Amino acid sequence: MTFTEPAIQKLLESIAFDANGLVAAIAQRHETGEVLMLAWMNADAVRETLETGRVTYWSRSRQALWRKGETSGHVQTLRNIRIDCDGDALLLGVDQIGAACHTNRPNCFFREVDADGLATISAPMAG
Amino acid sequence: MTFTEPAIQKLLESIAFDANGLVAAIAQRHETGEVLMLAWMNADAVRETLETGRVTYWSRSRQALWRKGETSGHVQTLRNIRIDCDGDALLLGVDQIGAACHTNRPNCFFREVDADGLATISAPMAG
Repeated sequence: MTFTEPAIQKLLESIAFDANGLVAAIAQRHETGEVLMLAWMNADAVRETLETGRVTYWSRSRQALWRKGETSGHVQTLRNIRIDCDGDALLLGVDQIGAACHTNRPNCFFREVDADGLATISAPMAG
Repeated sequence: MTFTEPAIQKLLESIAFDANGLVAAIAQRHETGEVLMLAWMNADAVRETLETGRVTYWSRSRQALWRKGETSGHVQTLRNIRIDCDGDALLLGVDQIGAACHTNRPNCFFREVDADGLATISAPMAG
């Protein structure tokens, strides 16, 4: 899914970017509702995502645009994009190829609190 | 769902709190996978949530603990809690009473980008 310039402008105007010029972005698997990851976008990442239909984040560690899947092939294709009531979070409906997590797990939330501490609840994907 | 002190300690040690002592927390409806909101927790909010089984955030605007639903009655009961690969985001599985959003909508992500800009995709709940 790609978007027109007026729609991109309207979204950018509605985002309350933080002091670092970033907004939180939650990626959710469109078909199942599985929450895949939380990452960050700057205005350029938002624009590129909406123009290309492929999800691009801002890497805070590398201080550069992070075209998800560019090296791994684990791209996220945009299905829809929502913004929250106060404009400081985005919710992306995506199709995820392969693993969302750099650990090769389906999603980044693979540790769950249990009675003893943290349990690992999913294994790395094959291939 | 409440948790023991060792489990709480283990989670707190695993969180990479930001420069403001906060971690992002995504609330997701346990039964359906609906993403309700993104908010923030400090260590005290994490502890209170796990000890009481009722979700408590940190209000950045009020600079105070925010016991979700304390005035509205729209409490979130904790079903499970996960942490992401780099420890800077939590995913809460919750049971939500009433509206998650202060606008009285079921969730905070009620504006979606469409061809013309932003469309409002859900109405305030009754009551």
